[in-house]
Amino acid sequence: MSSVTNRSDTATTGRIVLGQNNYGKSEVRVVKVIRGPEQHEIRDLWIDVALEGDFRAAHVSGDNTGLLATDTMRNTCYALAKEHLVSDIESFALALGRRFLDAGPSVERARVRIVEFPWSRLHPDGRPHPHAFQRGAGGNRMATVVTTADRSTFGAGIEDLLVLKTTEAGWEGFLREEYTSLPETSDRIVATVITASWDYDGCEDHDFDRLYNGVRDKILRGFGDHYSHSVQATLYRMGEAVLRAHPEVSRIHFSLPNKHHLLYDLGRFGIENDNEIFHASSEPYGLIEGTVERAG
Amino acid sequence: MSSVTNRSDTATTGRIVLGQNNYGKSEVRVVKVIRGPEQHEIRDLWIDVALEGDFRAAHVSGDNTGLLATDTMRNTCYALAKEHLVSDIESFALALGRRFLDAGPSVERARVRIVEFPWSRLHPDGRPHPHAFQRGAGGNRMATVVTTADRSTFGAGIEDLLVLKTTEAGWEGFLREEYTSLPETSDRIVATVITASWDYDGCEDHDFDRLYNGVRDKILRGFGDHYSHSVQATLYRMGEAVLRAHPEVSRIHFSLPNKHHLLYDLGRFGIENDNEIFHASSEPYGLIEGTVERAG
Amino acid sequence: MSSVTNRSDTATTGRIVLGQNNYGKSEVRVVKVIRGPEQHEIRDLWIDVALEGDFRAAHVSGDNTGLLATDTMRNTCYALAKEHLVSDIESFALALGRRFLDAGPSVERARVRIVEFPWSRLHPDGRPHPHAFQRGAGGNRMATVVTTADRSTFGAGIEDLLVLKTTEAGWEGFLREEYTSLPETSDRIVATVITASWDYDGCEDHDFDRLYNGVRDKILRGFGDHYSHSVQATLYRMGEAVLRAHPEVSRIHFSLPNKHHLLYDLGRFGIENDNEIFHASSEPYGLIEGTVERAG
Amino acid sequence: MSSVTNRSDTATTGRIVLGQNNYGKSEVRVVKVIRGPEQHEIRDLWIDVALEGDFRAAHVSGDNTGLLATDTMRNTCYALAKEHLVSDIESFALALGRRFLDAGPSVERARVRIVEFPWSRLHPDGRPHPHAFQRGAGGNRMATVVTTADRSTFGAGIEDLLVLKTTEAGWEGFLREEYTSLPETSDRIVATVITASWDYDGCEDHDFDRLYNGVRDKILRGFGDHYSHSVQATLYRMGEAVLRAHPEVSRIHFSLPNKHHLLYDLGRFGIENDNEIFHASSEPYGLIEGTVERAG
Repeated sequence: MSSVTNRSDTATTGRIVLGQNNYGKSEVRVVKVIRGPEQHEIRDLWIDVALEGDFRAAHVSGDNTGLLATDTMRNTCYALAKEHLVSDIESFALALGRRFLDAGPSVERARVRIVEFPWSRLHPDGRPHPHAFQRGAGGNRMATVVTTADRSTFGAGIEDLLVLKTTEAGWEGFLREEYTSLPETSDRIVATVITASWDYDGCEDHDFDRLYNGVRDKILRGFGDHYSHSVQATLYRMGEAVLRAHPEVSRIHFSLPNKHHLLYDLGRFGIENDNEIFHASSEPYGLIEGTVERAG
Repeated sequence: MSSVTNRSDTATTGRIVLGQNNYGKSEVRVVKVIRGPEQHEIRDLWIDVALEGDFRAAHVSGDNTGLLATDTMRNTCYALAKEHLVSDIESFALALGRRFLDAGPSVERARVRIVEFPWSRLHPDGRPHPHAFQRGAGGNRMATVVTTADRSTFGAGIEDLLVLKTTEAGWEGFLREEYTSLPETSDRIVATVITASWDYDGCEDHDFDRLYNGVRDKILRGFGDHYSHSVQATLYRMGEAVLRAHPEVSRIHFSLPNKHHLLYDLGRFGIENDNEIFHASSEPYGLIEGTVERAG
Repeated sequence: MSSVTNRSDTATTGRIVLGQNNYGKSEVRVVKVIRGPEQHEIRDLWIDVALEGDFRAAHVSGDNTGLLATDTMRNTCYALAKEHLVSDIESFALALGRRFLDAGPSVERARVRIVEFPWSRLHPDGRPHPHAFQRGAGGNRMATVVTTADRSTFGAGIEDLLVLKTTEAGWEGFLREEYTSLPETSDRIVATVITASWDYDGCEDHDFDRLYNGVRDKILRGFGDHYSHSVQATLYRMGEAVLRAHPEVSRIHFSLPNKHHLLYDLGRFGIENDNEIFHASSEPYGLIEGTVERAG
Repeated sequence: MSSVTNRSDTATTGRIVLGQNNYGKSEVRVVKVIRGPEQHEIRDLWIDVALEGDFRAAHVSGDNTGLLATDTMRNTCYALAKEHLVSDIESFALALGRRFLDAGPSVERARVRIVEFPWSRLHPDGRPHPHAFQRGAGGNRMATVVTTADRSTFGAGIEDLLVLKTTEAGWEGFLREEYTSLPETSDRIVATVITASWDYDGCEDHDFDRLYNGVRDKILRGFGDHYSHSVQATLYRMGEAVLRAHPEVSRIHFSLPNKHHLLYDLGRFGIENDNEIFHASSEPYGLIEGTVERAG
């Protein structure tokens, strides 16, 4: 190891210091096959690990003692999958987080984020296939568990849930000023790719599978069960439905890109376009983000 | 318009000539809402147009006379959707191709490729929602229609169909030589993202919807109904099943990336890994491509 | 507009409330050509606008009064580009932010983030071309300006800056535990895609172009001017160099994916691999993130 | 190995046969460091291998004898890099192709495609850094070598070369018909991402580095040295310039997406837009493709 003397020197002058920092392994792709007697199950995960703690020596003086290698984090994800990836991803994330706290003497906080990709069993002739699957729809499930010596917090989410309604939506009564050219409409397509993430109150004994499915169901219902005055109003309504149905959820955050569907001007060709033919535009897009939570 | 004299001069020296060429509009995103009395239907298309013909003047002497603008092609896709996007995408592609042949005096061959994205109706409380949808699974449907003054040819396909089987697959008995290090296995995961494209014999009166669903079904069955000696063997088997069931299909081509799932070495940590824990690797990947067709 | 009565009712029960929220337009692609007498200049921007303020009525009761449409934000970006996109992107972002505060009566905080893509003038025969360019290297420039009625804060950054060093880097002396399998090395490739963002102290009179180039230069020097004990140590060293050289910078944050280059095992084929032949792996990757700042 | 009897049976009925097929390894990422006395050089490649030959037994009867594993192809890329990646990528591709022909008894045709990514040496204080680099601009270099027992053919190319000119381009005099709405213009931005591929006449003794740089230079000059009546006309002009300058090039193919830059309508806000402010649109896009070649 080469000398770090002058690096240490410079680090202590000018009152320049290390602030918040974290490191870890991203996109660890763990697949587990559960080989049951009748049929196989599959778990398909993408794991991101981020550790926080006292890593100053590594940053400032090149001292790696006590630093867990990110390669070790990767190995750990696979090694613990055998015994600990047996139910919901929240439990697996917790097991991983605790392990990282134990393994790394300077680790104070482990954040483990897991995305689980859906697979649907094939059903040739209407019968379930014992071991063949296709990628499922309905978005990817996420869990984020943050673990410290004292406690763990549990969050969950859904991403890549693409939804669309063809009517019962408008955009009216908005502010008109110098640079406003958009006409009002009481009938438009609303399409978005839902990313939602929510926090559970503290307990690790939740039935996370039931809760995930419940929240997902409320989101989908809330998307379609009303006339939407705006993406904002639909965001709030979906969040409200989730919190009303699930007291375990303390807050939910949505990120909703407005995938604009623009009525195509066919009138110039003598063709009437009565909300039938649209151009789906990918950019630019409106982005509506917000949190619905419990007061106090 | 500036002079093109010297450009024409240079173009005729040295026997440098224009070879095969085509131009068109890509990624035209047409969405149509069919507003039925009980419920809405949605069609969500991505259209690529490519025209061939005598476009030498435009290339060599800057003469755009008779050249259809790609912007006009875009307008045409939307304009014709009103009347002609009423059943399968093959029929719509044909209508577009014929229009381009009619509209462009120097167009000799129109290739229209349409991808249709699947949407699944939401079912709150088990009842079909009249106008709300989520993105469906099972791959995107493709159609490619090539139209000339004399005839049209019809092709179809599927893309982005992600499938996986957890067992009943191996890779054994292959050649071993100087740079071979891979062990043989009689039990491995096979995962791939199926892209398949097939040709129909000439008639435009096929029931293209029925055929698409039939071919897709045979592919999925063929993926799971046997012990796979190799991706090549599974490719052939799927193709054979399609051609056997559907005499209208003259040939089918598959492009099958082998999404490797590598058994993770847990033995070094004293953990047995009996085909349970895998690393899903995205690169490099095997790529197996081939055509199954009728002889003669 | 349909009645919102029952929606307002539900919104006030159960103490469910709207939390932090923002909305805006993303990926507005503004290109400006400055048509000078000798040559043209080009500005190529991607703008994200996010507004915060009192938008409760829109969320809770479907009342859009006073809500600026995201389409209006888009128009504003283009409209103001004529007069206000004349020097650095920080100044343009500030002009946009002030406009949004003025235009939207309920807007309290405007965040405008601009990415500027680099273009390099072509030089046929060594002479600058008056109006032809190719995409440049060296990363995209970012600016983020947050404006309120009282003050504005200025941040800048760089993204997509891909760098690599072939030696003078190691990874030694790290913790070894149960799941550690990685060997130590005192000679490895380090490659990363630098994303850095930094904050300026408050003044809007900075020479932002000079500062950007200075920070970028310090980062590139800091990447290559030492033996790297770890990505963490290099992160800190680059940050320290920036803060030391530029008192206007109060803190800098780096996000550094470790694009692993793995020595390929050629020994099994009887070929020596003396740090010559590597596999560039894209996943999983280490991710090292941290802030270097001034104390107090 | 399970029985393949019934599979062989079905394969011989109905005259269903295996057509064209190929297999190989894609996205093999080989990085080589040349450790010179003064400074290091880096080669960064992405290799795609596709083999053709008599692979019928593997497809039809599950017989893998004599089949080269794609994993072996990967190993071969790394193993041969030590000795054979010493000059241009064409030579390395040829060495790989010959090796695959030798190694696989049923291989009849090896296609090796290599993409080389550019790296630029860092120059702190104006002096070349011995071992630190940043990703370069100007597109990725490609080579495609097809090798059979008798002969090899050499092709080259460039991809991801993003160019733009701000003027000296128009789109006038084109056909106007029922669905044409685009106005004519004699002053527009032309922007494209050039993908070009060209064939060399047979000899393997070409100075491929010189030729690549020459062709690239002619393309860039040809892009900017004239008033462009259309993308087609510019395509032809670039191709003509390449063939005129380099007799070793027998033909060149271009694929040119027209990255539309649309004049933004500011007149409705009382702002004149004299070809200054544009919206850069990513979809849909015109796609102009064509080959320029030598007659006969």
